[in-house]
This record gives sequence, C-alpha cells and structure tokens, in this order.
Amino acid sequence: MLKINKHYLKLQSSYLFAEIARRINAFQKENPESNLIKLGIGDVTRALPPACITAFHQAVDEMAADSTFRGYGPEQGYAFLRETIAREDFQTRGTRIEPDEIFISDGAKCDTGNIQEIFAIDARVAIPDPVYPVYVDTNVMAGRTGALRDDRYEGLVYLDSTRQNGYVPQLPATPVDLIYLCFPNNPTGATITKEQLATWVAYAKDNQALILFDAAYEAFIQDDRLPHSIFEIEGAHEVAIEFRSFSKTAGFTGTRCAYTVVPKTCTAFTADGQPHSVNALWNRRHTTKFNSVSYPVQRAAEAVYSADGRQQVRELIDYYMRNAAFIRERITALGLECVGGENSPYIWVSSTMESWEFFDRLLHDAGVVCTPGAGFGRCGQGHIRISAFNSFENVQTAMERIRKALA
Amino acid sequence: MLKINKHYLKLQSSYLFAEIARRINAFQKENPESNLIKLGIGDVTRALPPACITAFHQAVDEMAADSTFRGYGPEQGYAFLRETIAREDFQTRGTRIEPDEIFISDGAKCDTGNIQEIFAIDARVAIPDPVYPVYVDTNVMAGRTGALRDDRYEGLVYLDSTRQNGYVPQLPATPVDLIYLCFPNNPTGATITKEQLATWVAYAKDNQALILFDAAYEAFIQDDRLPHSIFEIEGAHEVAIEFRSFSKTAGFTGTRCAYTVVPKTCTAFTADGQPHSVNALWNRRHTTKFNSVSYPVQRAAEAVYSADGRQQVRELIDYYMRNAAFIRERITALGLECVGGENSPYIWVSSTMESWEFFDRLLHDAGVVCTPGAGFGRCGQGHIRISAFNSFENVQTAMERIRKALA
Repeated sequence: MLKINKHYLKLQSSYLFAEIARRINAFQKENPESNLIKLGIGDVTRALPPACITAFHQAVDEMAADSTFRGYGPEQGYAFLRETIAREDFQTRGTRIEPDEIFISDGAKCDTGNIQEIFAIDARVAIPDPVYPVYVDTNVMAGRTGALRDDRYEGLVYLDSTRQNGYVPQLPATPVDLIYLCFPNNPTGATITKEQLATWVAYAKDNQALILFDAAYEAFIQDDRLPHSIFEIEGAHEVAIEFRSFSKTAGFTGTRCAYTVVPKTCTAFTADGQPHSVNALWNRRHTTKFNSVSYPVQRAAEAVYSADGRQQVRELIDYYMRNAAFIRERITALGLECVGGENSPYIWVSSTMESWEFFDRLLHDAGVVCTPGAGFGRCGQGHIRISAFNSFENVQTAMERIRKALA
Repeated sequence: MLKINKHYLKLQSSYLFAEIARRINAFQKENPESNLIKLGIGDVTRALPPACITAFHQAVDEMAADSTFRGYGPEQGYAFLRETIAREDFQTRGTRIEPDEIFISDGAKCDTGNIQEIFAIDARVAIPDPVYPVYVDTNVMAGRTGALRDDRYEGLVYLDSTRQNGYVPQLPATPVDLIYLCFPNNPTGATITKEQLATWVAYAKDNQALILFDAAYEAFIQDDRLPHSIFEIEGAHEVAIEFRSFSKTAGFTGTRCAYTVVPKTCTAFTADGQPHSVNALWNRRHTTKFNSVSYPVQRAAEAVYSADGRQQVRELIDYYMRNAAFIRERITALGLECVGGENSPYIWVSSTMESWEFFDRLLHDAGVVCTPGAGFGRCGQGHIRISAFNSFENVQTAMERIRKALA
C-alpha cells in the first residue's frame, strides 16, 4: 500500500494566497460590477524593460535557426549570465563572489523552498514571524516540525518581528542550525543595518549554523548605508547563502528568473563533524533535479545589466517607490502606524482590527485587496501588508477609497 | 551544528552526464582539432517549429506593454495550455483527462525528480534497470535507500530490462508501492504493448501501488497499436501518474516546458489506510514550491497544437526517425544487435565490450560521443545508447566513422 508523505497532513488547509484568491472570487461573484484594486500579492504590474524585450526577441530568433539553436544549457545557468551577475551585482560593489558561486533558477520561491533538502532532517530551524509562508511550509513538508498549534508548528524556533523590536528579530534564545532571514523584509518592509546583520553572522559562526538570506527586494534599497547583500558582512561567506530574483527588480514575476549565491567556502557538517561544501551539495541537487532556465529568459535577464537595462530598471523601481511613499503618507495621515515603504515596496500597517477582519473590510468597503498579516504568522496579527505594485493612478484611487472606508 | 542531508553521501561521485562531459573535455583538451559528433545526451539539435517561434515572439510583445503584461500566472499553468493539452493529447484520442488533472512545469526531469516527495519515506520503490538516473538519485537523496553496493542501492527493487525479456521487465517478485516505468524507454528505446502495460495496471490495483509513467518519448511512436498514454489502459486513472514533455516532441530542451498528468481519481493512503487524493497532494507541492513556467514559453508550447505546429512537429519527428532508422540499419550491418530506433529516438546497442570501454573506443577512435549503458544501471553493462538527435549529415558521418573504427 502506497502511503502519502504524512507531513503534508500537518499543513494548514490552504496556502495564504490561495485563501485570498478564494475570498476575492466569492466577493466578485456577489459583486460582478466591482472594480477591485489589487495591492495584495506582491506582483508587479508594469511591462518588462525594453532592453529585456529586445534581448528576449533576439534569443527567440536564435532558437528559430538550426545554426544558432540552443538545446540543454548548463544546469547551473549559462556562463554569460553567471559571470555578469558575479561582476555587476557583487564584484563592482566590492563584494567577493565568483561565477561558480551563482546558480541560476526559475524563481526565488523554488530556491528558498528547495534549499532545505540538502540539510539534515533534524536541523533546528529558526524562522521569522511574520514570514513568507514558503519557508515554513517546505520545512513542514520535509518533516522538520510537529503539529500546528495556535498558528505555530512544534519544533520550529520562531523569531518574533514586532513593533517593539522594530521588526528585526532578536537572536534566538535556544541554539538553532538553520536561520531564515529576509531583508528588506517581506512582508513588513523593514530593513536591517550592517551592524545588526553582523550579529547574525557572528551567531552563525559561533553555532556552526547557516543563514539563508532572502534578498529578493534589495533593488528597492534607497538608503546607501543598508547592506544589499549579506556578503558585505565580514565572515558571511562561510555561513550564509543568498537568494536574489529578477521578479521584483525587473518585473520578471511572469517571466521567471532568479539566482542563488552559495559561496564555495560555505560549510555544513557530516554527522561526525567533518566540514562539507554546501556549494557542492547544492550543485548536486540542482544538476539532478533541475534543467536550468529557458535560454531566451536568461538572455532577457542578462539585459538587465546593460546600460539601457540599468536605466530602465531604475525607472521601474522609482515608479513603484513613488507609490510606496504615497501609500505611507496616506496611511500615516489616517492616524495608522506603519513600517516599510522606504526601502521596500511593502507597507506594513498596524491596526486594532484583526488582520483578516481588516482585509475583509478593505475588500468589501473599499474594493481594495491587501494581504492580511495573520497569513504570515502569529506576529502578523493586527497588521495588513499593502503592496506598491500597481499604477500610480490605481494607488491614488485605492488610498482615497480606503480613506473613505475607514472614515 | 548544521548537519547535511547524509543521504547525499551515498550518491555516486558524479551524475552520468557530468562524467561524460568530463571525459569529452579531457579528450578535447588533448585533441583540440577533433571534430566530435555527439550522439550522447538526448538533446535535440533542430530549431523550434516556426509556429512556436511566432507565438513566442507575440507573447514577448505582450510583456512589453503594461496593458498586456502578465505577472504571476497560475502555479499549475495557464488554463489556455492545460485545456489545449487535455483536449488534444487525450480527449480527441478517446482518453478521459480533464484540464485540472494537468500540471504545467519546466521539465519532466524536475517533475520525475520531485514527485517522490509527496509519498512516504518508507515507500517500497521499484525502478527499472537500465534507467534514467534521476529516478534513482532523487530517491537516494530522499533517504529511501541504503548504501550503494555493486552498482545497486540497498532497499530499491530493481526491474531488470534485458535482451531475455525484450527490455520489458517482469512484475516485481516482492511487493512494491511505487513503480517507475518509461515507454518508449530511455535508454533502451524499447516499447510496451497495451497488454503488457495492462498487467502493470492490474498489479498496481492489486497492491494499492502507484505507477509513475514517463511518456516523454510518446511522440516518436510510429506503431498505432502501441499506447501513447498509460491512461489508455482501463483502470489506470486510479493507479498512475504520467509525465510528458515538449523537450523531445518539439525541441524544447533549451526552452523548458513539460507537464504531469495526475487524475483526480488517483489515490494513495494515509498510515491508517484512508485513501487520499494524489492530485491534491501534488497541487499542494506545486503551488508551494513552484511558480509556473514563463508566460511566453507557455504560449510557445500552446502553438505546438496549432495546425501549423502539428505539421512542423511531425516533420521534426520524421527527421529524427529517419536518423534512427539509418543508425539501426548501419549498426545491424556491423553485425551488432540492437533494440529501439523504431518508435524511439534511441538505439540500444549490445556488445561484448564493457560499456565505458565501448564509449571510450567510439570517442577516441571514431570521434563520436554515445552514452555508456552502464551509466544507466547494472543491466546497461555491455550496451551503449546512440541517440538520433543530430543532423542527418552528422549521423551519416558518425556511422561511417564507427564502421571504420570497429572494422
């Protein structure tokens, strides 16, 4: 008799965004005339940069002739893209990263979900709260947790991110082996300073732990003092992996390209304490279970780093950051507290309402979709996340509707 | 201390195709003037069908304007593609499959590698020998095996495919829960009849087992009596999953699109014997760890089913099948036995040489790259796989060089 992976039965009934979609569908069925504005799921709305479009077309044309056609590429991604990323995102910023430490993938969701596979099942895992649900759910599926009780899985160490600590968690009180961090944060939009991040790197060194650093939103950083990469921190190359994505940077959510940085000096251990290369493990996983990203998509991603591409990406980011500043201003004017929106496309709003109640209120009374904070964890209760990914016109309309709804 | 997934240490030092690449690189370093012809890795060489190119470009253009831009799509794939596949690959052929039983992905390698995650770690797994290494390696990584001894992992049930049984294995002698089958077969090119496949479906029903049916090469079937899908077999909807790919069908190895069929009636069991939907499990896995395939790629895949696309795909397949027939004829003329090449792009050649010796002989003496059978398992010893994926001119040259080298 074939048994299922019993750990799946521990999962909450539905993934956060699926539940949101369900409520939206129900609302739209009852209100077919409604003109919803979606500031919920962190999905971009503006066209790909023209430089990416041009490169995309050129690569499709290469696929149209036998002489330039490309079949299987290297599983880790093409050298042209790995080398460009290493140089432009790291080396020219003074950060030491080599091309063979870059693994191209089809999304940071996949990478942050798959990375836990290469570590022991009894690894003690620390996860922020609130958090992008993928970190939690993939560890539940793998069997690293017990049952769900009061919105928390037994066996996970939760790192509370609250108004009290400025949404940057304290070091864990009990020893952990694997630490998920995300800055600029999803969902809170909070940032971390180099000094704060250095304390996490020191903790990882002291505890032979590893930090999984999700930097999918680094392009939104406006404050030059903030770290764009964990590898700006001395010693991080031994104790950290970093996840990056073109999704939010260059509008690739529907185009699919991301990358993961695994330094060759990054180490985990065998049961008898021998150091083992994490880069080699991830390479084995990647080459066995993945066949790289569509060639034309890799060419489109490469174009992000061209002179035109850079300029166009800067304009995209600036556009969304104008939205973010507008949302922050209007939310504050309503007398609500918020964080984020200054170095991040997300604004995390505190309220006295429960977060699904707040969500339903905005859906029904303002026709605006946000994301309920409780969907990201217990500490998300009493918060909603508003995303700056929409047209400026829609953001203006949405904030005006919210003002009236909450008046 | 962060420990690694100890099961990775059981894996052989390198993945088959990486070892082949290593030997080729070493040869080319010593022989920089050599003009190798690659009939090794099953990678296509001919351009994408023009219908796919046109659709690809159109979709890229949609990504260039805010009004037609697409961000995140449904994780399971767009309805336009799922509906087209269900209708064209199944319903019009008289096979009952619905769109919500189709999951679009970036490759059959990923899907066949990831599928085991949703089943219990103590599932008893039957795997053909010889076999596509991904089935084996991903179960080793998950911890379903013991150590490797004499080219076999303890705990796996191997299904020998030999000249004696026409490369279609017998039913397992001991009970198993999860059965990998691949027809037309990679690497042997052998096919299975409906009657033979029905005995496997009956076995799965009797044992509450599940068949993972890899049909990545179904487009190469020429003999109308052979099944294109396991779902042509009565009762298979309860006990089988099927993997399909556009890689070999339409030259998508570098473009990346595939799909997996999981009928809603397909069942596995909880520890206490309650039936559980495998479709729901895979949906949970897919939506949590994957963010679907690039939108332009999905449009290019859809075009495979247009009138022009069908015709162009037919021509691609015919081209490669002419190569396959030529290889079969020449191999036979050399007095060597072979199977495959009639409903498959692979020809599986028997020899008195060890297979890596045969591989090295063709590499060094003929400048032709094949795949050594032993890389696919113990039963692959004494065989090589020759692939028909190349230009007809190169195939002619390669076969002439092989004739001289073996003379």
